[in-house]
Amino acid sequence: MKFSQKLFLALCFLLYTATSQAQTHPNLMLTAGNIPAVKAGCNDYPLLKKSYQEIKAKADKALSEKMDVPVPKDGAGGYTHEQHKNNSANILACGTAFQITGEPKYATYIKNMLLLYASQYEQWPKHPKQKSNQIPGKLFWQCLNDFVWQVTVIQGYDMAYNAIPANDRATIEQHLFVPIMKYFTQDCKETFNLIHNHGTWCLAAVGITAYVINKPEYVEMALKGSDKDGKTGFLKQLDELFSPEGYYTEGPYYQRYAIMPFVIFAKAIQQNQPSLNIFKYRNNILAKAIHAALQSTYTTGNFFPVNDAMKDKNFISDEMVYGVDIAYADIAPEADLLDIARQQNKVVVSNAGLAVAKAIAEGKAKPFNYKSTFLSDGAKGEDGGLGILRYGSNASQQCLLLKAASQGMGHGHFDRLNLLYYDNGAEVFSDYGSARFINIESKFGGDYLPENKTWAKQTIAHNTITVDQTSQYNANLKNAEASHATLVHFEVKDNLQVVSGREDKAYPGVGMLRSSILFKPEGYTKALMIDVFQVNSTAEHQYSLPFWYQGVITDASFKFSAATTELKAMGKDNGFQHIWLNSDNSITDENSYITMLNDNHFYTTHFTGTSPLQVKLVTLGAGDPNMNLRNERGFILEQKKSGSQAFISITETHGKTDPTAETTTGAKSTVSALKVVSNDAAGTTFTFTAKGKSYTCKLDYSSKDKFIQIQ
Amino acid sequence: MKFSQKLFLALCFLLYTATSQAQTHPNLMLTAGNIPAVKAGCNDYPLLKKSYQEIKAKADKALSEKMDVPVPKDGAGGYTHEQHKNNSANILACGTAFQITGEPKYATYIKNMLLLYASQYEQWPKHPKQKSNQIPGKLFWQCLNDFVWQVTVIQGYDMAYNAIPANDRATIEQHLFVPIMKYFTQDCKETFNLIHNHGTWCLAAVGITAYVINKPEYVEMALKGSDKDGKTGFLKQLDELFSPEGYYTEGPYYQRYAIMPFVIFAKAIQQNQPSLNIFKYRNNILAKAIHAALQSTYTTGNFFPVNDAMKDKNFISDEMVYGVDIAYADIAPEADLLDIARQQNKVVVSNAGLAVAKAIAEGKAKPFNYKSTFLSDGAKGEDGGLGILRYGSNASQQCLLLKAASQGMGHGHFDRLNLLYYDNGAEVFSDYGSARFINIESKFGGDYLPENKTWAKQTIAHNTITVDQTSQYNANLKNAEASHATLVHFEVKDNLQVVSGREDKAYPGVGMLRSSILFKPEGYTKALMIDVFQVNSTAEHQYSLPFWYQGVITDASFKFSAATTELKAMGKDNGFQHIWLNSDNSITDENSYITMLNDNHFYTTHFTGTSPLQVKLVTLGAGDPNMNLRNERGFILEQKKSGSQAFISITETHGKTDPTAETTTGAKSTVSALKVVSNDAAGTTFTFTAKGKSYTCKLDYSSKDKFIQIQ
Repeated sequence: MKFSQKLFLALCFLLYTATSQAQTHPNLMLTAGNIPAVKAGCNDYPLLKKSYQEIKAKADKALSEKMDVPVPKDGAGGYTHEQHKNNSANILACGTAFQITGEPKYATYIKNMLLLYASQYEQWPKHPKQKSNQIPGKLFWQCLNDFVWQVTVIQGYDMAYNAIPANDRATIEQHLFVPIMKYFTQDCKETFNLIHNHGTWCLAAVGITAYVINKPEYVEMALKGSDKDGKTGFLKQLDELFSPEGYYTEGPYYQRYAIMPFVIFAKAIQQNQPSLNIFKYRNNILAKAIHAALQSTYTTGNFFPVNDAMKDKNFISDEMVYGVDIAYADIAPEADLLDIARQQNKVVVSNAGLAVAKAIAEGKAKPFNYKSTFLSDGAKGEDGGLGILRYGSNASQQCLLLKAASQGMGHGHFDRLNLLYYDNGAEVFSDYGSARFINIESKFGGDYLPENKTWAKQTIAHNTITVDQTSQYNANLKNAEASHATLVHFEVKDNLQVVSGREDKAYPGVGMLRSSILFKPEGYTKALMIDVFQVNSTAEHQYSLPFWYQGVITDASFKFSAATTELKAMGKDNGFQHIWLNSDNSITDENSYITMLNDNHFYTTHFTGTSPLQVKLVTLGAGDPNMNLRNERGFILEQKKSGSQAFISITETHGKTDPTAETTTGAKSTVSALKVVSNDAAGTTFTFTAKGKSYTCKLDYSSKDKFIQIQ
Repeated sequence: MKFSQKLFLALCFLLYTATSQAQTHPNLMLTAGNIPAVKAGCNDYPLLKKSYQEIKAKADKALSEKMDVPVPKDGAGGYTHEQHKNNSANILACGTAFQITGEPKYATYIKNMLLLYASQYEQWPKHPKQKSNQIPGKLFWQCLNDFVWQVTVIQGYDMAYNAIPANDRATIEQHLFVPIMKYFTQDCKETFNLIHNHGTWCLAAVGITAYVINKPEYVEMALKGSDKDGKTGFLKQLDELFSPEGYYTEGPYYQRYAIMPFVIFAKAIQQNQPSLNIFKYRNNILAKAIHAALQSTYTTGNFFPVNDAMKDKNFISDEMVYGVDIAYADIAPEADLLDIARQQNKVVVSNAGLAVAKAIAEGKAKPFNYKSTFLSDGAKGEDGGLGILRYGSNASQQCLLLKAASQGMGHGHFDRLNLLYYDNGAEVFSDYGSARFINIESKFGGDYLPENKTWAKQTIAHNTITVDQTSQYNANLKNAEASHATLVHFEVKDNLQVVSGREDKAYPGVGMLRSSILFKPEGYTKALMIDVFQVNSTAEHQYSLPFWYQGVITDASFKFSAATTELKAMGKDNGFQHIWLNSDNSITDENSYITMLNDNHFYTTHFTGTSPLQVKLVTLGAGDPNMNLRNERGFILEQKKSGSQAFISITETHGKTDPTAETTTGAKSTVSALKVVSNDAAGTTFTFTAKGKSYTCKLDYSSKDKFIQIQ
C-alpha cells in the first residue's frame, strides 16, 4: 500500500470509530431513511414490485414451515447443507419483508431462528465432513460456505435489528455473531488474510457483521488484515485481485462469485464510512470489475467458461444482480446496465434496486454495450489477458475469445492461447468448462470430479495446440504460475479486428503465436473468423489443434469413415485417455473443410497447414468408468514430426435451416482456395477466395502499424 | 360408399355444375365479400396485423428480387428445388398482399411469374433426379412436391385472378394449370387414386385448381377418384385415412402434413359447394382430425415422434396454423384452440385468421384442453391405437404414450408397445424419431438416411421389448401390416390412469402385454409412472427392454464400471450394430434404481423383474461411418433364457437443481422396496413403498371393473 493510501485510510478509520456510536438500522442495501421510497417503489415500478413479491412469497413460505436448525452433518447438496443455506436465505427474505410491510412476524422469525443458532453454534465442532484442501466451516463442509451464510444472515439481522429485544440481540451477538467473527478471524485466519475470493468472502462477512453489531476492531481487521497493517484485508484485495481493467485472475466464473462480497462490503463501507469513498478507490476499480464481468459474457448472458466454470452460469445470478444494481445506483447510472437488469428480471429490494427499477419503468434502458476489448490480467495489467472480439448486433453477435492470460491460480486450466467462438446466440467452438455436478451429492459429493483434473484442465480439452500429447507445463500448477502468456497485438477497426497472443514457456523449446481475426469482406453480412496458429521449434514435435464444436457435422471435403465396430481411446494420459477416436484422415487435397450444423445455422471451417495435415474426428467419453463426462465432439488438426509450422483456418457462418418450415438456404460455404504463401517467425501470408473475390492476408508480427493487411 | 352418400354426392355435384358459371374470385381462404373486414382486421387485431406484416414483407422482398424460374435440376435442398418452392410461397404472399393493399404490382408479379412457368412447363421433362420409389414431378424430384407447389400457387392465382388480363389467364391456364392437372391425374394417376397423404395432396391440388379455373370434370375426379366412381377420391380418403377419433394411421408427424390438403380442399369445397356440408362429413371427421393432431403433441407443441418423424416438428408449423384457424372459424369456435393459435403466434391472413385474431384480441382464449385419451387406429377404429395419459397443468404436465397401433404403412416403425414419457416440458424416455437431415443435400440428399432403416425403424431403437436381438416381424413391412396391436384396457380416474395394450404376433410364440400407469399417491404433487411389461412364452428367449433417456445418469443403486479403453458394438444387425456397450451389470440386490438428471429435474427409475436382470448402459453411434446418428443414451433391462417374464418399473419425478442459484433439492427418490408378488397370464401383483407408505398394486388382465387396484 502506498503511503498516501495508508494515511487516507488511517484518517478515515479514526473518523469512523469516532462516529460509530450513531449506528442506525438498517444501514446496508436498504437504509432506514429510504424505506418509504422503496415501499412506494414496490407498488410503482414493475421490476421492483415483482422482485419484492418473490421475496415476500419466500418469507411467507418460511413462516409457514417448521423451523429446523439441524446439527451440521452433510456435504454439498445434502440435507443439512441445503437446510442451513435455506435458513440464511429465509432470514434475508424475512428482513426485507419486515422492512417493507412493517409486520413484526417477520422480525420474530429472524429472532427465533437466530436464537436457535445462538443456542447451538458454540457447541458445534468443526464440520464432520471436510472438503479436500479446505478449512472446514462449522455449518458447512468448507468455511467458504459459512462466510456466505454470514454475509446473507447479517443483512437480515440488520433489517430486523430494531424489532428484536435488546436482551435477545445480546444473546445472538454474544453467542453467534461474535463467535463467528472469532472463528473467521482465528480458525480461518489463513483464509481471512488470503488474497483470493475466499478471503474476500471471509473479510466481508467479518466487516459487515462488525458494522452491524458495532465492533470497530473487526472492521479494521476486515479493511487492513488481521494484523491491521494493510498487508492484507479488503483494500489490499482491491489492489491485487483485479487488473487495472477490473479482470479477476481466476476467470469470469469466479469473478462473478467474487463480486458479491466486494460490492456488498463496499456498500456497507459506503454507508458506514462514506468518507472512505470506497467506490472511487483505485480509479473506480469496483465499477471496472462489474463491467469486466459483464464484458466476460456472451450475449446469452453466459460467462466465458475458461478455467473451472459451470457453463450454465450467467449474469442472471444473484451476485450480478447485486453488482448491476449497485453499479447503476451507487457508482454511475449507465443506461445500458438497465438492459442487463431487464434480462435479470430482478432487482435487489433495496435503495439500489429502487433506482434501477424506476429507471427501467421510465424507459431509460439501452442495449448493453458489448465491446471488443482486451481485459488485461494481473494486478498491474502486465500478465497477458483475455482478448475479446465482437461483431454484429446483440441479437446475432459473433464473439471470439483468445485466452492469453496467467494461470488463474488453482482453478486455472492449462489452456494458453485457447480460442472460444460464438455466433447467433450459440457456442460454435466451445470449452468444456469444469467437470462437476455442483451440489449433486451422488456425483462425488457435488465437488469437482476427478475428471476435472484428468480431463477438463488438460490442454487437449481446449481449442489450443497440444505438443507431443502432453499438457502445457506438464500440467504442473507451480510451473504454470511462474509465467503468463502475453499480448502481441490488439486492433479493432470496422470490418477488421485482430487479437494476437504469444506463449513461449508452456513447452520447452516451442514458441507459440496465435492470431485470431474477425474480417468482414464486402458483400458479407457476417465476419469470417480467421485463425492463424504458428508454432516455432528447432526440434520435431507432434502438434494437435482441436476444435471442440457444438452441433453435428453435415459435410466435409474428404470422406471420413468412422470406426463402426470398435472404438479406442486415443491415449493413456494427459486427457487423451478420455477421447474416443472415431476417424483419422490424411488430408491430401486442397480446399479442405468441415461443415457443422449448429442450432440451425451452418458453419464451415476451411483449413490448411504448412505441411500435410491429419484430421481426427473424436468423441469425448473414454476412460470414464462413472460416465461423468458429456459426449462432446471435436475435430483435431494434427501435424506429426514437424518443427516450425502453422495451422490456418477460416470459419464462415452461412445459411440456415428452418425445421418447422422444412426449408434450407445457403448450405454451401462461399469461401474456398485457402493457401499458405509464406510462414516464418517474422510473418505469415496466405490467400483465399470469398464469393469469387481473391484476398491476400499478410501478418507482420513485428509491426505495430501494419500487423495485419487483407487485400 | 353407401348408396345414400352416392346419391347425396351426385345431387350436390349437379347443383355445382349448374351454378359454376357464377364463379367469383377470390373464393378460397380469403373470399371477395369478406375483404373489407379482413383489411380492417389487419389494423385492429394484433395477431392478424403481425401475420399480415410478415406476408407483406415477404411479398415486397419477392418484388425486389430478380425473378428466376430455373430448369428443374436439383434434389431437396438444392438450388432449383428451393427456388421453385420459394416462388410458390412468393405467389401466395403476393396474392394476399394484392387483396389487402389493392396495389396492382403484386398481381403483376403473379402474372409475370406464372407466364414464365407457362412458357416452359410443357417443355420440361420429368425431373432428372428421381427420389427412390417415388413418381417424379416436373418441378421437383418427387411429384408430391409438385402437388404442394400447386396447392400454394393456385391460391395466389385465385387472389390475383381479377387483375390478370383474360388473355394472360388463358395462357396460364392452358399452358400451366391444365397441363399440371393432366400430369397429376394421368402421369401421377397411381398417386391420385392412392388412399394416402400423397394422394390427398394430389387430388387437393387438382380439385382446388379445378374450382378456380372452373373445370367441373376435374372437381368430380378429385372428389370421386379418376374413374369418378367414388372408390377413391377425397371422400374416400376422409372415410378411410382417419380413425373415428380422427387419428391418421401414419402417425402424428404425417398427420400434421396430411391435414393441410384436407383442410384447404375442404374449405374450397365449402366455398364452392356449400351444400356438400363437407365439414360435417363423417360426423365432423375433419374437426376430429385436427383435434387428434393437437392431442398428439406434448405441451411443448412437439408431435409425438412415433414412426418416421422429424422431432423438431411442432404445432407451430403452417399446416397446423391452417388447421387451427379453419377448425375455429369454419367448424366450431372452441376457446382452447385460441391458446394454440396464440402459441403459433400467427394466423392465415384470411377469413378464418380474422375470426381467430379477433377472438384472441377479445380475450376469449383458454388453455388448450390436453386430455388423457385413446386415439383408435384404423378406418373403423379397430386396429389398436395410441394411449395417451396426462397428469398436471400444461406448465408441468406428465404425459405417457403407449403405442398399440397398426404398422402405419411404409413410414411405420417396428415398435409395438413402445412407451414415451414426458415431464416438466421435456422428454424423459424418448424415441429417436427418423434418421434424416431433412433438406440438407450433403446428408443423403436430405432424404431418409440408410440408418433410418438400419436403426430408427428397428425395435431396439424403441422403448419396447426386443426378443432374441431381432426386430418385431423381422422388420418385414408386409408381415407387420397384416396385424395390429390391440387395446386391452384404458381407464382414467383422478389419481390413477392406466392404458394396457397387447401384441401377440410380432414374435412367433411370444405374447406381449404392457400396462402403463400414472398413479399419484397421497402426499405427492406428481404422479409416479408405473410400467408393467409382461411377456409370455413356452420357449426360452432373451428379452431386452431399453429405456432411451434424455439427460445424464447421476446415481444408481449398483456400481457400473463403464468401458474405458475400448468400446464395442452390441451386435451385428437389427439395430444392435449401432449401439456401443458402455457397461453390463448383473443386478443382484433389491431396491435397484437409476437416477437421471434431465433439464434440472431428477427422475429415478426403480426396476425389478420376475427373474434376475442384467442392466446395460449404452450409447448410440456404432456402425455409423458417416456419423449420421445422434449419440443418445439408454439403459437396457435384459433377461436371458427366460420364458414367461415381467419387467416392472416405477419412475419418480423428484427434486430439482437450479444451476444459476447453485441449489439442489430432493435429489433422493422417495420410492423403494419394489417387489413382485406374483405374475402370470391372469395378472400381476407387486408392492412398493412411497414416502414410507406401503402399496400393493394388483393388475387383473381379464377384469373390466377391477383391472387395476392400488392399495
